[in-house]
Amino acid sequence: MFAVTILGNNSATPAYGRFPTSQVVTINEHQILIDCGEGTQMQLSKYKIRKRKINHILISHLHGDHYFGLVGLLTSMGLLGRETDLHLYAPAALEKIIQLQFESSNISMPYTIHFHPLTEEGIIADENKFSIKCFKVKHTIECWGFIIKEKKVPKKLDKEKAVEYNIPAAYYNSLKEGNDYVTKEGTIIKNELVTTPNTPEKTYAFCADTIYFEEMIDKIKNTTLLYHEATYLKDLENKATQYCHSTTVQAATIAKKSNAKKLLIGHFSSRYEVLDDFLTEAKEIFDNTELAIESVTYIV
Amino acid sequence: MFAVTILGNNSATPAYGRFPTSQVVTINEHQILIDCGEGTQMQLSKYKIRKRKINHILISHLHGDHYFGLVGLLTSMGLLGRETDLHLYAPAALEKIIQLQFESSNISMPYTIHFHPLTEEGIIADENKFSIKCFKVKHTIECWGFIIKEKKVPKKLDKEKAVEYNIPAAYYNSLKEGNDYVTKEGTIIKNELVTTPNTPEKTYAFCADTIYFEEMIDKIKNTTLLYHEATYLKDLENKATQYCHSTTVQAATIAKKSNAKKLLIGHFSSRYEVLDDFLTEAKEIFDNTELAIESVTYIV
Repeated sequence: MFAVTILGNNSATPAYGRFPTSQVVTINEHQILIDCGEGTQMQLSKYKIRKRKINHILISHLHGDHYFGLVGLLTSMGLLGRETDLHLYAPAALEKIIQLQFESSNISMPYTIHFHPLTEEGIIADENKFSIKCFKVKHTIECWGFIIKEKKVPKKLDKEKAVEYNIPAAYYNSLKEGNDYVTKEGTIIKNELVTTPNTPEKTYAFCADTIYFEEMIDKIKNTTLLYHEATYLKDLENKATQYCHSTTVQAATIAKKSNAKKLLIGHFSSRYEVLDDFLTEAKEIFDNTELAIESVTYIV
Repeated sequence: MFAVTILGNNSATPAYGRFPTSQVVTINEHQILIDCGEGTQMQLSKYKIRKRKINHILISHLHGDHYFGLVGLLTSMGLLGRETDLHLYAPAALEKIIQLQFESSNISMPYTIHFHPLTEEGIIADENKFSIKCFKVKHTIECWGFIIKEKKVPKKLDKEKAVEYNIPAAYYNSLKEGNDYVTKEGTIIKNELVTTPNTPEKTYAFCADTIYFEEMIDKIKNTTLLYHEATYLKDLENKATQYCHSTTVQAATIAKKSNAKKLLIGHFSSRYEVLDDFLTEAKEIFDNTELAIESVTYIV
């Protein structure tokens, strides 16, 4: 399972019941929270996503609609007795903002928060089952995108075949890595006999808040699922440029030029009550587009 | 109209859909926000309370469930184009917390926030139609209660009588203040002939988060509507004492001993899904009690 669940899809101020940006990425048993607008902890409860399973939080930038729910979530994690370490990746200035609020409340957390300030593009987390990379986007303040990539062993084991060849289970991981098996008698069981090639590794790219800029294309090439903001419909391209945001057409153009498999658009302006036109406009450029809708889980 | 509307009634972490503490007090055309837990701006929208009309915000203390919605609300007020000054009364440390977040977002507000740090007990706001007083309560950190008092002119005008005596409208305010009217011919129209005594001035006291302590009684005597926290049912008095909170019975005892007309209890612990027992227990001590329920407006 590699998927993203939308907790909030609105920009700036909440409107029409739409919450500000927050998404949960699930990779098997791991959960990664991307951005944490006000109300995220309520949204997690509403959609029965367990806060306990989130060990990585990524904050793209320090506009309130992307992080005003963070200190509340961190505090609640503590009040609920969390003991597991938490890794937080964000612009450097966030550390002091959090510290100051913890100090003022005089509550100490029963778990450790490892704060990782984002400083340069590249791998920021390298776990067994996934890696996280950050890259710069262009907004009115320092702003980061993220690419989450699942890690797979090169081969899938054909267990029936492995049993047939009397290969002990202790060697299964070695087979998945592509190695042959040598029996006690010295017979070589070729790897190809008991494995098949694994499916390609998938990626989810989150492009945060950004103006349209083509240098991004190289950074996110061939993404399986690409999230790109589309704050405005195409007729408001001037406004998008003015506020360093993007339109439907611009988001779809990035998806097309970067050869994404699928595009997810969100961060809708509060000026729009109905979102249908966002989908229509984006699909004209890039057909495999979906709207990021609260509560919906999109498979990567 | 003098009333309080509950936006959130839960303590510490949100639970069972209950939001953290926030209340809006309405005095005629004025609105005062007391505490601003996470999600308050969404609750204001949900209950169609116009953010624009709030010119005073009171923050009792710096535990997150009482103020984590504040910077979001202040930011949204700015994004929505507010120009009217806003008065914010809170523990001193909040000023830096807000400043730091405004600085990081690089957004400047189109309106002025007057920050009034709470330092000593007494009148903090003295407006035409109401006054606000703060007083210290006892919690794990610096914590303040508030008393909002409506101001009335001493007399109510009997307009029919005033017309009968040919008193020009320009003198009506003077009559309400208790003055007689002297005609051009020098005849004195006694005030009592055209007015009746006004009804007594009402008060709303908000006792914030506090341990049971009897010194409070003197500070809030004869309140029309008293809000006192009741985080726990009576069997958890030890826990209440440990965390500097109160029980149902303690809240009701304060209401009884301070001669309140009516008691409102809230700040319910997340351990309770059903709240019925809170009402039953409080009523055993002080019958005129109500639960502070989200969305409900209680007349002072």
